[in-house]
Amino acid sequence: MLISPYGGELVNLLIDEGEADELRSEANRLPSVQLTERAVCDLELLGVGGYSPLNTFMNQQDYQCVLEEMRLANGTLFPVPVTLPVDADASVSLDQPVALRDTKNSLLAILEVEEIYRWDLDREALAVLGTLDQRHPLVAEMHGWGALNLSGKLRAIQLPHHADFRGLRHTPAQTRTALESKGRQNVVAFQTRNPLHRVHEELTKQAAESIDGALLLHPVVGLTKPGDVDHYTRVRTYKALTDKYYDRDRVLLSLLPLAMRMGGPREAVWHAIIRRNYGANHLIVGRDHAGVGDYYGAFDAQEIFNNPLVKKSLIINIFAADHTAYSKKLKKVVMMRDVKNHAKDDFVLLSGTKVREMLSNGQELPSEFARKEVAEILMDYYQSR
Amino acid sequence: MLISPYGGELVNLLIDEGEADELRSEANRLPSVQLTERAVCDLELLGVGGYSPLNTFMNQQDYQCVLEEMRLANGTLFPVPVTLPVDADASVSLDQPVALRDTKNSLLAILEVEEIYRWDLDREALAVLGTLDQRHPLVAEMHGWGALNLSGKLRAIQLPHHADFRGLRHTPAQTRTALESKGRQNVVAFQTRNPLHRVHEELTKQAAESIDGALLLHPVVGLTKPGDVDHYTRVRTYKALTDKYYDRDRVLLSLLPLAMRMGGPREAVWHAIIRRNYGANHLIVGRDHAGVGDYYGAFDAQEIFNNPLVKKSLIINIFAADHTAYSKKLKKVVMMRDVKNHAKDDFVLLSGTKVREMLSNGQELPSEFARKEVAEILMDYYQSR
Repeated sequence: MLISPYGGELVNLLIDEGEADELRSEANRLPSVQLTERAVCDLELLGVGGYSPLNTFMNQQDYQCVLEEMRLANGTLFPVPVTLPVDADASVSLDQPVALRDTKNSLLAILEVEEIYRWDLDREALAVLGTLDQRHPLVAEMHGWGALNLSGKLRAIQLPHHADFRGLRHTPAQTRTALESKGRQNVVAFQTRNPLHRVHEELTKQAAESIDGALLLHPVVGLTKPGDVDHYTRVRTYKALTDKYYDRDRVLLSLLPLAMRMGGPREAVWHAIIRRNYGANHLIVGRDHAGVGDYYGAFDAQEIFNNPLVKKSLIINIFAADHTAYSKKLKKVVMMRDVKNHAKDDFVLLSGTKVREMLSNGQELPSEFARKEVAEILMDYYQSR
Repeated sequence: MLISPYGGELVNLLIDEGEADELRSEANRLPSVQLTERAVCDLELLGVGGYSPLNTFMNQQDYQCVLEEMRLANGTLFPVPVTLPVDADASVSLDQPVALRDTKNSLLAILEVEEIYRWDLDREALAVLGTLDQRHPLVAEMHGWGALNLSGKLRAIQLPHHADFRGLRHTPAQTRTALESKGRQNVVAFQTRNPLHRVHEELTKQAAESIDGALLLHPVVGLTKPGDVDHYTRVRTYKALTDKYYDRDRVLLSLLPLAMRMGGPREAVWHAIIRRNYGANHLIVGRDHAGVGDYYGAFDAQEIFNNPLVKKSLIINIFAADHTAYSKKLKKVVMMRDVKNHAKDDFVLLSGTKVREMLSNGQELPSEFARKEVAEILMDYYQSR
C-alpha cells in the first residue's frame, strides 16, 4: 500500500542470532577497525536498509560513478558517497574479514575486505559539496579521514546501541508497519535538525492535509551541523508537540540515525531516497535544505529535483517550502511569498540569534512563534549552558 | 580538610568565556583533529584536573618515562600514558594551533602543537598492559591508532557535552565541595563498571564505616570493557540503590567520564591518583581490578601498591577486597576468605553468566544477591536485548 522501497526491496544486513554468536567468537581473532560516529551511523542505515539498494560501503566503481554522475555503477540514482575510510596503515588485508567496532569498541559487523582503494579529497569535496573550503564542516572533517576506502560483503551482528528514546527509533520496516496502520497511502516526510516552531508545525500539517496523507516527522539524530541544539533537547520538543498538537492518527515521530553531510542539493536528493525507503512518497524541502554557510543557493536543493535523472528515478514528490511566518494581519502562519500587502512588521519574525538571546535571558517567546511547551524546554537548555 | 589533590593543586584548563569566544572564531580558520571517544574522555579529565598534575596529552619525554618507570619526567608517579595519537598525514604542523573536535565535530579545545613524535605499539602495550595479544581490547584498539602523538599547550573551550544525568556529573572541584559538605575528612572511593549487587553494597558500606568516612561511589561512564552493561542502565541501578539503601549524609554518587585501558595493576594505581584528585584518601581495589581475560594475576592490582615508588607517592590507602558473598549460615555478606567452616553451598553464589541467563528468562534474583529495584532494572535491560 505504501510506496515501494527504492530499488524494489529493503536491504537487511542483520544476520540471525545463531550465525551472530559464531561470528562473535570468530571476531576475537580478527583485526578490528574502530568506526567513527559517522561510520557507525552509515553502518546502521546500511544494515536496516535506509540506503537501499546500497548494501555495503561503496566500492571504487560505485564511488566514482556517484561522484561523477550521481549514480551507482548499475545506473541507479545515488547522490552521496557512503564510504569507509581507514588509515593507510590499518591492519586490513584484501580478502580477509575485519571486525567493525563502534567508538566504544563494541562489535557491530564483519566486513569481508574485497576492495581497498585510494580516494581523492578534492575530487570528492568538489563533486559532493561544491567547495574545498575548510570552513565547510564536512570538508574540515574529511581532512582527518584515512587515505583508503574499504568495501566488501557486510554482515551486521548487532545494530548500534541507543540507550535513549528507544520507543522512537524504528527501522524502515518498522516505520512502514507503523505508517500502514495509519491507513493512508500518501505519506509526507519532514526532515529536520532543529527544534520545531509554529511555522514548522503549520507547514507539516498543511503538507499532510494537502495530500490527505500521514506525516512522518523524521528528525536527524545522528550527526548534524556542529553547534546545533543536541538531539536530546530537540527530541523532547518533538515529543511535546506530537503528544499535544498533532493528530495522533496521522503523525509518526521517528528518529533517523543519519550522519548529515551538509551537502545541500545532493544531500536533499539523498534524503528523498532515504525517506522513500522509510515509506514516504513525499518530502518537504525547505530553503537551503541541508545547507551550511553560503555554499549553496537558497533554492538549489529544490531545483535539483528538476534534473531529468532525479525526476525520472525518485518517484517521490517534493513540497518546496519557502520562508514561512505568522501573519499578524491574517492571524495565521503563511508562506511569506504567498501573501500580498504585507510589510515586514506584519509578520512575527525572530532570527535564530534573537531567539537564543531571549531564551538565555529567560524571556518568553511569543506564542505565535513557538508553543509554550517547546519554549520551556529550550529555555532550560539555553539557561543551563 | 580533604586530602590535597595529587601534585598539590587541581589543574583547570577551561578558559574564561571572553577568551573562549575569541578562540571559537579563530578555530574556524584552523585545521581540525576529530577526537575519538577515548580522547574526548581524556581531554575532559585533563581539562577538569582529574589527571592532575598532568595538564596536557603527554610529550615524548613524559611518555617514555611513564612507559619505563611509571613516572613523569619530573619524577611524579604516573602509571598510564595519556596521549593524543593522530594519523601520519594529519593536517598538523609544529608550532601551529589545531582545533580539537568531538566525534560530532563540536569544538572542544585548542592545542598548540609543540611536539609531534612517533610511538611504538609493542613497547607501549607490553609496558602498560603486559601483552601484545590482540584479544586484549585495548591492544586491538591500539592497532587503529595513528602513528604520531601530539602534545603542547592545551586550552579547553568547553567540556564535552553530556545530555544524560547532568546532576550526577561533577568536576573534581565540585566533587570536593560536595564531599566536604558531608563533614568527614576520610573518603573512600569505589570504582566500578558493573551494576551493584548486595556484596558491593556491603563492601562499600563497611569500608566507609571502618574509616568513619564518606563514600564516593564513582562508576566509570566513559569507556569500559566491550560488552559491559551500558552506563545508562547501570546508573539507574546506582541511583535506585543510593536513593533507598545508603545513608545520604554519607554517600556521594558521581559519574566519572574515564576511558578505561583494562590495564590491571597500572590502571589501579591510576585510579587511585584520579580518586585522590576527586578528594578520596582511600580506594577499594578488588580482585582483578581493571582486568580483562587472564592477562593479570588476581591480586596484581593490589600488590602493586606495595611497590616502594607507589607506596611513597600516593598517600592514599587501599582497601584490598577479595571474593565476597552472602553466607546462609551467618545471614550476612562476608569476605569469603574470612569465614571458617563454610562449604560452597553455604554461600549464595551466582556467576555472571547465570545472572544474565536468569534475568533474560524473567527469573527473579535471590534477594540476598541483589536488591529488587536493581534486579528489575537489569531484567528490563536483558529482556529488551
